[in-house]
Amino acid sequence: MYDLDKIRADFPILSRQVNGKPLVYLDNGASAQKPRAVIDAVTQAYSMEYANVHRGLHYLSNLATEKYEAVRGIIQRFLNAASEEEIVFASGTTEAINLVSYAWAAPHLQPGDEIVLSIMEHHANIVPWHFLRERQGVVLKWVECDANGDLDPQAVIDAIGPRTKLVAITQMSNVLGTVVDVKTICQAARQKGVPVLVDGSQGAVHMPVDVQDIGCDFYAITGHKLYGPSGSGAIFIHRDRMAEMRPFLGGGDMIREVSREAVSYADPPMKFEAGTPSIVAQIGLGVALSYLMDLGMDKVAAHERALRDYARAQLDGLNWLNVQGNSATKGGIFSFTLQGAAHAHDVSTVLDKRGIAVRAGTHCAMPLLTHLGVGATCRASFALYNTKDEVDALVSALELCHDLFS
Amino acid sequence: MYDLDKIRADFPILSRQVNGKPLVYLDNGASAQKPRAVIDAVTQAYSMEYANVHRGLHYLSNLATEKYEAVRGIIQRFLNAASEEEIVFASGTTEAINLVSYAWAAPHLQPGDEIVLSIMEHHANIVPWHFLRERQGVVLKWVECDANGDLDPQAVIDAIGPRTKLVAITQMSNVLGTVVDVKTICQAARQKGVPVLVDGSQGAVHMPVDVQDIGCDFYAITGHKLYGPSGSGAIFIHRDRMAEMRPFLGGGDMIREVSREAVSYADPPMKFEAGTPSIVAQIGLGVALSYLMDLGMDKVAAHERALRDYARAQLDGLNWLNVQGNSATKGGIFSFTLQGAAHAHDVSTVLDKRGIAVRAGTHCAMPLLTHLGVGATCRASFALYNTKDEVDALVSALELCHDLFS
Repeated sequence: MYDLDKIRADFPILSRQVNGKPLVYLDNGASAQKPRAVIDAVTQAYSMEYANVHRGLHYLSNLATEKYEAVRGIIQRFLNAASEEEIVFASGTTEAINLVSYAWAAPHLQPGDEIVLSIMEHHANIVPWHFLRERQGVVLKWVECDANGDLDPQAVIDAIGPRTKLVAITQMSNVLGTVVDVKTICQAARQKGVPVLVDGSQGAVHMPVDVQDIGCDFYAITGHKLYGPSGSGAIFIHRDRMAEMRPFLGGGDMIREVSREAVSYADPPMKFEAGTPSIVAQIGLGVALSYLMDLGMDKVAAHERALRDYARAQLDGLNWLNVQGNSATKGGIFSFTLQGAAHAHDVSTVLDKRGIAVRAGTHCAMPLLTHLGVGATCRASFALYNTKDEVDALVSALELCHDLFS
Repeated sequence: MYDLDKIRADFPILSRQVNGKPLVYLDNGASAQKPRAVIDAVTQAYSMEYANVHRGLHYLSNLATEKYEAVRGIIQRFLNAASEEEIVFASGTTEAINLVSYAWAAPHLQPGDEIVLSIMEHHANIVPWHFLRERQGVVLKWVECDANGDLDPQAVIDAIGPRTKLVAITQMSNVLGTVVDVKTICQAARQKGVPVLVDGSQGAVHMPVDVQDIGCDFYAITGHKLYGPSGSGAIFIHRDRMAEMRPFLGGGDMIREVSREAVSYADPPMKFEAGTPSIVAQIGLGVALSYLMDLGMDKVAAHERALRDYARAQLDGLNWLNVQGNSATKGGIFSFTLQGAAHAHDVSTVLDKRGIAVRAGTHCAMPLLTHLGVGATCRASFALYNTKDEVDALVSALELCHDLFS
């Protein structure tokens, strides 16, 4: 039983108006809104239960440490990792992928070694590898999606050559909504001895994730897209890869001993967590993931599938609208342009006047947009709290745009 | 007029009890408590004003962007930087110093080049430089403090040799409370053409800071010690150094253009801010710094000086207590051990039973403790809201410890 009214009531911001209209928040691909339970947990932590973690022996420090460290177990369950010790806190997918780039890839890859990635990657899963290209001669091998927005897993597997040292791939395109069969890719890559990093920024938000079943080596999540606070997030790192990694950020908490001459490091996962962490943000992420698990990610996914089907049918009816990507695997992410003169930015401005929040731009995925041959698009991206009425509101506002600009 | 009762009423947690006693929070060196204005700003942002920044064109995104970007100006004013563009957001001093290490020092320093640092540094200002020693043969040159905890600026200046490429130094020891004359060091270093990084983690909390007057190249601050949220912070980087830096974290927002073959970067400071930032945490930091500027950092410093004088006199009266560091510049940070068998951890546990929160351990400053010849210490560290009554409570609880353990 998925009680949408009750769920919506959990999110305070959904009751507000924007420009005199009820907010229709369809910018979830950029960031999701927060349920009251998350906001309350943050307030409670700062108001009554705050101290630094790990290094204290007093009541508040112990309390904060317990609450903070419990989140590692919640993330482990959310991703079905084999062990809490395979979960490293990070400020989000960007920091998490940079961790892999600096701590695992940089010391392992030689000039001419290859990283296979898809054309659908977000800049967070591109730029860290470009650094390795610029700085140490690593070669980026791109795998394209077809005109429908589908990415053939076999094409990724075929791109793995003798010099390939890593596959870096999204589980779900933040522009097209395409869901990638990362499990098939991981199975084949593992047979070839090539680790796979999965960017779960979008994927983990919209479907149940099981990193053991997928068989990936790295799986990064972004807390603020998962209904959690700013600056929260984590990465699953398979214990075998963890053992191969040098530290990334240096500072307190990640060391065992420091002298003038030398430094020795704490065991993973602490080795990769330097300094005071985002204590309260991560506590809030724990509450957000518990909220999702209480709803059931399968039920969230089912709701969003229904919403996607409805939106797809409605948008298909607008013959002056070009939706990018129509994969059978497509989730509730619709990037589109209007035929004629209307620029995506103008469209989003008109929608905003009707209280509808969408994003316009290149969505941090310039290589994909170049591949598709489009400039900026508008993107409406759905979340667990969106409704068919909101789809209708979007369609009606798009019709207004069409009238205005055609 | 410094109305301590009114100020204390601004901090909700200070009214709570711990172990049946009123909380006496003296663990401010590890992290400070949050005023209601900060907590309310965080709640308001998540409840009614949340969206991702920079990339949106809708109302909530514009609102969040305005609030977030305004914080850059607040930090500029707080540090008296010449320009907002010299302020880079970071999750705290740890990330900020690692930014300097990876983005400025790593590409500039050759094997045999030297970094001068003091024995009083926190691990956050040691371990990133140890990385450069381990990875590229950089030499760390240590400058010691004397038995009183004083650090002669001339000793730091004298340590600068022809191979010195950076001085990395704290403005205030987190163990001894010693305030370092960073201005004298920076003036001399600038004449020698050597940049100086100042770790302002403690300094910025306890005195007015003017980075132009100091003349430093880098000045890092930690938001959660400045009464702001978890995961907030920033670094001042002189525009000349910024121009010499390559990017650090790769991802969205820090690029100009990304293709399969190449990437070009945004102008500073965005070049150093990858991905979705800790939006709400930084908004909260802006409120915290405004709170401090409204109080007046000179008034905060005067209050803490009075508290330090009172605490010093009281603790001096306990002839079985060894306080580390007695510099004339000392701020309100007291690290101590009890003569006899009482371990610092046991002492802190007894204090905790009386509701008094202090820290016990090596305070992320192992080289200093080795230099001082002490193991773990207890540390009582004062903040703008502490009172003489709380000093009395500490002294009375220490007397109890002395009775218990002697």
